[in-house]
Amino acid sequence: MSTEDTTPMRTELSSLGEFGLIDHLTSGMKSGNKSTIKGVGDDAAVVDAGKKLMLISKDLLLEGVHFDLTYTPLKHLGYKAVAVNVSDIAAMNGKATQILVGISVSNRFSVEALDELYAGIRLACDRFKVDLVGGDTTSSVSGLFISITAIGEVDKGKIVYRNTAHNTDLICVSGDLGAAYMGLLLLEREKQVFKANPQMQPDLEGFDYVLERQLKPEPRVDVIVKLSEAGIRPTAMIDISDGLASEILHIANDSGLGCRIYENKLPIDVQTAEVASQFKLDPTTAAMNGGEDYEMLFTANVNDFEKIKSISGLHVIGHMTDKEEGNYLISAGGSLYPIEAQGFNHMREVE
Amino acid sequence: MSTEDTTPMRTELSSLGEFGLIDHLTSGMKSGNKSTIKGVGDDAAVVDAGKKLMLISKDLLLEGVHFDLTYTPLKHLGYKAVAVNVSDIAAMNGKATQILVGISVSNRFSVEALDELYAGIRLACDRFKVDLVGGDTTSSVSGLFISITAIGEVDKGKIVYRNTAHNTDLICVSGDLGAAYMGLLLLEREKQVFKANPQMQPDLEGFDYVLERQLKPEPRVDVIVKLSEAGIRPTAMIDISDGLASEILHIANDSGLGCRIYENKLPIDVQTAEVASQFKLDPTTAAMNGGEDYEMLFTANVNDFEKIKSISGLHVIGHMTDKEEGNYLISAGGSLYPIEAQGFNHMREVE
Repeated sequence: MSTEDTTPMRTELSSLGEFGLIDHLTSGMKSGNKSTIKGVGDDAAVVDAGKKLMLISKDLLLEGVHFDLTYTPLKHLGYKAVAVNVSDIAAMNGKATQILVGISVSNRFSVEALDELYAGIRLACDRFKVDLVGGDTTSSVSGLFISITAIGEVDKGKIVYRNTAHNTDLICVSGDLGAAYMGLLLLEREKQVFKANPQMQPDLEGFDYVLERQLKPEPRVDVIVKLSEAGIRPTAMIDISDGLASEILHIANDSGLGCRIYENKLPIDVQTAEVASQFKLDPTTAAMNGGEDYEMLFTANVNDFEKIKSISGLHVIGHMTDKEEGNYLISAGGSLYPIEAQGFNHMREVE
Repeated sequence: MSTEDTTPMRTELSSLGEFGLIDHLTSGMKSGNKSTIKGVGDDAAVVDAGKKLMLISKDLLLEGVHFDLTYTPLKHLGYKAVAVNVSDIAAMNGKATQILVGISVSNRFSVEALDELYAGIRLACDRFKVDLVGGDTTSSVSGLFISITAIGEVDKGKIVYRNTAHNTDLICVSGDLGAAYMGLLLLEREKQVFKANPQMQPDLEGFDYVLERQLKPEPRVDVIVKLSEAGIRPTAMIDISDGLASEILHIANDSGLGCRIYENKLPIDVQTAEVASQFKLDPTTAAMNGGEDYEMLFTANVNDFEKIKSISGLHVIGHMTDKEEGNYLISAGGSLYPIEAQGFNHMREVE
């Protein structure tokens, strides 16, 4: 009576990758409702709500895939689950207003454990002025599964998509890159040490910054506000959840353009570089392919260069080109390296 | 380094139950955004979208908890995942317009298997004129997890909540009750037979109706349309996902009222009664506590009695009372039985 493998063909999911799979599953779908403005293919879906546009983002967080409770405090996890969705809405130049939280848990978890998780959710809701408007809690056979839906809004004239960059536009990024991934490597290392010898205390001293970047990312809502105040409207925008390389390729490919990024312009914190060196990793690799920075990556007209430079914490790291010129990282020595999406493909990691 | 059980207290999730847990986790949360109209505690959240109200529902479907792939075709599962959310929106007197689908799968599943699932999702989207606007696909350590968010809309003057019934209102239900649960019992029985002897063919002949009610529920969007055409505005409404008893208690408790339901008014299909008798179950128990019927349960002013009776497929099964009169089922013989929520508590089932 099994129904799931009766088809003679079997194509492995890993052969398509996460983005390939979504494209495959949703290809050819047409929208029929006139309120549907934008479907699959950006940080959030866009629905016409009359005076404003409504933004809807959705994220799934699975134990064992997206987080490891060995070193992730539940309160931090709750905070992060909200934060990454607030970031998705911000990446459309919008403001998150409501969230719905779906949680599946096994009986391994106590009410007190869920209280901790919700304490983090509440903290993030307070901080980002988001109302929790829906909660669905159900049991799971094993593990913890979190599904967050965020609702946001943006004025019709202000929405920013990822496929609207123009040739010669500046490529800009907020904050610094690669730190969250270095935090993850440290936590994974200490976990292995702990597994080998439970008497050992974790050696995480002096690495607060990269650990916090991993465990408690802050969505860059402030960047959206600063850009607006400075009168800069990004031509395209995306938040960095899968690594700079992956995200700039989304902007470039979806806009039908190429890009150049300059290695010596990449903002990398000294702690990130230090941890990278411990792991014998090139800090540039950490910055390009480390995921979960949740910084804003955007393109802007070259005429906005001075305005952007005047905003502290924003960095111009390259520019868009014709599609024919391809997607390249220019090394400090002037060599060209093709930019390829790698790093944070959760689909590939597990399978 | 484990973080999940460091609290000295441990309260089991099962001690609160699903609804108790949601109440516990979300209690005391205040809404700060003026667009937030209704938060936790109805079929869908309600957000002010200017001219209309926007409705957002969210459902989680987990393999091994909400469905069993031994007897659930993936195409049916995809259809049902959309259908139950369309039903949630309809229960607010609204029309579903968009959905977002989040799927987590292990590498046990092939691309072809997900194609089947999406074929069902597409079929339901076409049928209910819902646009798929977001897709998130990620890997899971094991099993299939589906998270659906549905967006809908309703005119401001037409929304119907579950907490707005009035004393003496009629209690009405569409279709018939208990069939989906009988379908589930049949499928579970045949699964056990098959496990004991894989050579045995499943004996499901002649039970198409109850099987279809379980595997391919149809949201009663037609009921919403018929009520509107007849000029009837329900005073309160909810869809029946957890069984009539559980749902009428939501309406009664949330409205601060009591209720009387008459056993001999309960609409029960002959096939439901037949299967119930095979399982030595009282058909009334199936109707009261069997879940997943996805019929509409609503209250209406007594003056609408004639209009309601004139609509085929609607049944008046009781009336609301003062809270002090309690919640009772009146048996065919005139005895009073207290109505208690039982049946479909997925939290209790697994744990």
